[in-house]
Amino acid sequence: MFVIMDIHASSEDITRVENRIRELGYQPHTIHGDTRRAIGVTGNRGTEDRIYLEGLPGVQQVIPVTKPYKLAGREIKPENSVVKVGDVRFGDGGVVMIAGPCSVESRDQTLRIADLIASRGAHMLRGGAYKPRSSPYSFQGLGEPGLEILAEAREQTGLPVVTEVVNPRLAPLVAQYVDMLQIGTRNMQNFELLKEAGKLGIPVLMKRGMSATLDDTLMSVEYIMSHGNHDVVVCERGVRTFTSHSRFTLDVNIIPAFKEVCHLPIIVDPSHSSGKRSGVIPMALAGLGAGADGLMVEVHHDPDHALSDGPQSLLPEDFQELMDLLKKVTAALDRPFKIRSSAVGVKA
Amino acid sequence: MFVIMDIHASSEDITRVENRIRELGYQPHTIHGDTRRAIGVTGNRGTEDRIYLEGLPGVQQVIPVTKPYKLAGREIKPENSVVKVGDVRFGDGGVVMIAGPCSVESRDQTLRIADLIASRGAHMLRGGAYKPRSSPYSFQGLGEPGLEILAEAREQTGLPVVTEVVNPRLAPLVAQYVDMLQIGTRNMQNFELLKEAGKLGIPVLMKRGMSATLDDTLMSVEYIMSHGNHDVVVCERGVRTFTSHSRFTLDVNIIPAFKEVCHLPIIVDPSHSSGKRSGVIPMALAGLGAGADGLMVEVHHDPDHALSDGPQSLLPEDFQELMDLLKKVTAALDRPFKIRSSAVGVKA
Amino acid sequence: MFVIMDIHASSEDITRVENRIRELGYQPHTIHGDTRRAIGVTGNRGTEDRIYLEGLPGVQQVIPVTKPYKLAGREIKPENSVVKVGDVRFGDGGVVMIAGPCSVESRDQTLRIADLIASRGAHMLRGGAYKPRSSPYSFQGLGEPGLEILAEAREQTGLPVVTEVVNPRLAPLVAQYVDMLQIGTRNMQNFELLKEAGKLGIPVLMKRGMSATLDDTLMSVEYIMSHGNHDVVVCERGVRTFTSHSRFTLDVNIIPAFKEVCHLPIIVDPSHSSGKRSGVIPMALAGLGAGADGLMVEVHHDPDHALSDGPQSLLPEDFQELMDLLKKVTAALDRPFKIRSSAVGVKA
Amino acid sequence: MFVIMDIHASSEDITRVENRIRELGYQPHTIHGDTRRAIGVTGNRGTEDRIYLEGLPGVQQVIPVTKPYKLAGREIKPENSVVKVGDVRFGDGGVVMIAGPCSVESRDQTLRIADLIASRGAHMLRGGAYKPRSSPYSFQGLGEPGLEILAEAREQTGLPVVTEVVNPRLAPLVAQYVDMLQIGTRNMQNFELLKEAGKLGIPVLMKRGMSATLDDTLMSVEYIMSHGNHDVVVCERGVRTFTSHSRFTLDVNIIPAFKEVCHLPIIVDPSHSSGKRSGVIPMALAGLGAGADGLMVEVHHDPDHALSDGPQSLLPEDFQELMDLLKKVTAALDRPFKIRSSAVGVKA
Repeated sequence: MFVIMDIHASSEDITRVENRIRELGYQPHTIHGDTRRAIGVTGNRGTEDRIYLEGLPGVQQVIPVTKPYKLAGREIKPENSVVKVGDVRFGDGGVVMIAGPCSVESRDQTLRIADLIASRGAHMLRGGAYKPRSSPYSFQGLGEPGLEILAEAREQTGLPVVTEVVNPRLAPLVAQYVDMLQIGTRNMQNFELLKEAGKLGIPVLMKRGMSATLDDTLMSVEYIMSHGNHDVVVCERGVRTFTSHSRFTLDVNIIPAFKEVCHLPIIVDPSHSSGKRSGVIPMALAGLGAGADGLMVEVHHDPDHALSDGPQSLLPEDFQELMDLLKKVTAALDRPFKIRSSAVGVKA
Repeated sequence: MFVIMDIHASSEDITRVENRIRELGYQPHTIHGDTRRAIGVTGNRGTEDRIYLEGLPGVQQVIPVTKPYKLAGREIKPENSVVKVGDVRFGDGGVVMIAGPCSVESRDQTLRIADLIASRGAHMLRGGAYKPRSSPYSFQGLGEPGLEILAEAREQTGLPVVTEVVNPRLAPLVAQYVDMLQIGTRNMQNFELLKEAGKLGIPVLMKRGMSATLDDTLMSVEYIMSHGNHDVVVCERGVRTFTSHSRFTLDVNIIPAFKEVCHLPIIVDPSHSSGKRSGVIPMALAGLGAGADGLMVEVHHDPDHALSDGPQSLLPEDFQELMDLLKKVTAALDRPFKIRSSAVGVKA
Repeated sequence: MFVIMDIHASSEDITRVENRIRELGYQPHTIHGDTRRAIGVTGNRGTEDRIYLEGLPGVQQVIPVTKPYKLAGREIKPENSVVKVGDVRFGDGGVVMIAGPCSVESRDQTLRIADLIASRGAHMLRGGAYKPRSSPYSFQGLGEPGLEILAEAREQTGLPVVTEVVNPRLAPLVAQYVDMLQIGTRNMQNFELLKEAGKLGIPVLMKRGMSATLDDTLMSVEYIMSHGNHDVVVCERGVRTFTSHSRFTLDVNIIPAFKEVCHLPIIVDPSHSSGKRSGVIPMALAGLGAGADGLMVEVHHDPDHALSDGPQSLLPEDFQELMDLLKKVTAALDRPFKIRSSAVGVKA
Repeated sequence: MFVIMDIHASSEDITRVENRIRELGYQPHTIHGDTRRAIGVTGNRGTEDRIYLEGLPGVQQVIPVTKPYKLAGREIKPENSVVKVGDVRFGDGGVVMIAGPCSVESRDQTLRIADLIASRGAHMLRGGAYKPRSSPYSFQGLGEPGLEILAEAREQTGLPVVTEVVNPRLAPLVAQYVDMLQIGTRNMQNFELLKEAGKLGIPVLMKRGMSATLDDTLMSVEYIMSHGNHDVVVCERGVRTFTSHSRFTLDVNIIPAFKEVCHLPIIVDPSHSSGKRSGVIPMALAGLGAGADGLMVEVHHDPDHALSDGPQSLLPEDFQELMDLLKKVTAALDRPFKIRSSAVGVKA
């Protein structure tokens, strides 16, 4: 932590800051520049203490150096973490494909799509039983019956399943049915939900909030980890910007930036930023190019009648095209992209 | 709803869209422009159906006209709504001042600040017992003992109290202690919490999400209203933008825009966008100038030792200065700004 | 400047950075924290040298302390600067009102509006002779004949005139006709134009770029000042954000932030952020509340037929209402707001 | 164009709007919905006329349908345009690599880097002789001597050269020396410069403004095209958002969105959004994945001593790695990526 003093700060101001630093149990190191003083602070454990210095007279700025996250950071754990979900491994250098419908609409719809993606080589199934919709009048998901359908789809295809949880109270129930819990973008700073997800023993897929900074994102990961769960995968799905040519702006820059400071895997959702089908494959390839550890896409056999996100869902033939491209591009990049052997036996 | 067809759309494409519109139970009205067709849709009840049209071949864009919110909108209720909290009235043309500490840190601290703001004419007390902190390692609030302190402060000063609720499970408990529930900015799209707040019988202060559009904001209000609670006050507290000279950008433009489409009151929190004391009074006056129905500010008698938000908390003398300015400016604007009579008997 | 070393940096890395700092002619001050080293740099004159350190092995971050601007900053000139344009003074604590049409459309239109605003007490006339329109097919302004009309309007009303300049080559011509040159928001980083404006001897009104940070803005001011012209007034006119309820988001937070670091005046344009008439008065009052030294608004007697910006132009009666409000609010804030004596003799 | 009437609009309001539409020479088509009227307008030629309708009583919103750009749009020219610069072709399905130093610093530096990139297969050389720097105290470029060096580098390597032009007055001079003019991001709405670029006979590389919407971008292209020059290539280089983990956010979503509406080529600059070397290759691959027609990267043999942009410049070995990856990935995507035959004879 550095305290930058105002150019017009008095020597009393400087002494007061130095004393406060000592009072907090740290050491001040005052540097005398040509025009001002700056005070390095050593011994501090986090960034929280800045608030006890920022308001003092003569202080221009307090600059934190120590990162506010611990468990998520590479400073404590330099090597990559691998998160296992069934036989799927995130973060081992390979590329994981999660696919499925936006919502679980019916048993037939979900089993059909599950077969479809399994037969084309997807590694995991996604599908929402509880849907956090912007409108109270929109389809809110099937609830527990939806979870049962997902469990049946897993049974049938062998694919591990990820689904969203929206209420801390329901998290234990959801965890019984699926292999991985998803925290949605609108709940990334629903800390009660994060704490609950931290206490359950299954991996978490945490979507980045639509206006979350990298530090915000890592602090939410830290909530989950500090409550006991280190199996966290982050998902970039697009952020709010001034543009309107896409629903959100896929922030590909966060992929290398995240990997530089955090040892956990990060994947990309190309469907939600585009908001329409024609953008999904380009954004999937962009995410892969940026270095993502996996992709999550929405697929529907009849998107024009889907109860949610139809316009951005890939058709079966689009999904096939994407898988074919991924096979070739991952090979060119020398990154493993296994087509599951279970894919063989599935009836599509 | 309008469906804009691509300039190269075929007549089959157009017929398909017209048929789908009829299939959905609505009427198509096709307009033949020089270069393209556009199809007006009448009879539709909301905006949800756009997803069944957007993906069809030849469709360039679907433009919704009907607003996705009903209860919150002026189309159903053109006149202003007044929300009453004890003897405080939001939205009657006057200006309401809510003040208090960021966090309830102790009985002594809270009672002291409550007295301080009451004696200077504030209308309501704020203070957090449950704190949604970005870091799991930061002070998370006193919990229920904090609620008891707030209730005591109300007893002592006569000021109605507002406090944040962060977990749907705890909402009924919180509602027993205070006069108004606050939904924080990070929970504006925590729909489970909104539903719960809609079911309890007390007024809600809903903070706008830091990247929520006006429509997003109104849809979250709609969640609360559609679950039975029409006593909602919205609070603008700054949005995420590219700037770094303030923590958030106070979006004063939303005040007149909100009032144009929604009948509910809207207030401004000038503390969180500034992030530092010197910006709070200017932002409070900016919010008032823009037409806000009230203000919510953080006040602390010893901000350098506050457990949260010290640097942006007003000192007692700052708060006095703000109240003096508000008295004069509200008079100039011909807007009522009552100094509570209870303020007289309070020991400060 | 501080150089933060990576936690895993080697002692060779640290020595290399220290040597490079000395090689650049500065002094390194290495601080030994618990987990990492940080190196304070003294003796450096600007922020440019960071680029020679950022790329070195083991360097995590370089944090500049010295501001990149000199002449614009309060460190060199702590007291407020007053910029005079004719008998109008920006930055002396008072509030300046600049009003007029978006474009000079005709002699009759401009003289009529000039009379109208003068008779209601405006202090300066604005009007565009060269219009930087987003579309090449839109009205581009009358050019030099427009300048002649502005000069005639000044003659008639006694109001100093400000108009935009869009081409460095034409700047000297424009400067012959008017009292203040405007640099538009789209040209805030057109450095060739800034240099030219710096060489001419008349005051400059520089609009903030729509995505300019505070530092960007001050560096553009620095361009003008470093080329010899210290009479610069900055204008906040709204920034690009994710919102769509207004055309731009008026960044009121920049007013106190700007005044903290810069001695020059700053005014607010409430017309362009709103994009519509109903938002202009609220944004004008918001800007005033935030502490602006003046306002610039668009006024038109027949906005429905205006060649540009009609929907956001105030009608004569709106302008009267705004002036009446400003009189009362500036009095409440104890800020001078002179109604020009010349206003008396003008025929409206 | 659609005019959406307010739900409370009177029949006089509607008649007034219909009459105004006819007065403008167009046809109104009024649609009677359950709760409101909407009026389709046919016969209009652009979007400019919306301003004559937006301000009328009872009008809630005017929605343009016709795009404001003509020459740039696919409606007029559905097939892709190929822009030729020497023997380089943008937009023919292949991928073009432009590389070179940020600034021309010296003859030796530029010739050395030109050789380096040529020998590794780059297709064009970039380098700045006029540098639009945020600070007036930063290196501003060598000017005309820099142009001479670029011409010599072209002579030596056979690579066509692109360089930035910052002043309309100097544009003809610059055009004499190089093969393609670059318009920088800060000048994308410097319309005087665009007009001048439109009049010269050489291809233009126009960088997207850092807060330009897709429509803004296309309107600036339209400025160039409408002044006679149809050889325009657009470059996405990152936009201003709330994030700070990268200098700008590379907006990969604009690539497919641009291609949907515009027939011109679009390339990606991965260097400026990253702001540091480690992000450049991932962003280059992301841009390629999104469908870009080419890439432009900064390369320097001694970036620690570069006069500008050193930290984000690729080292020779990085550039080699990028070219190797591109060869493999373009092959996987079945997109031509020719290594120039001239590369053979060059001494590196």
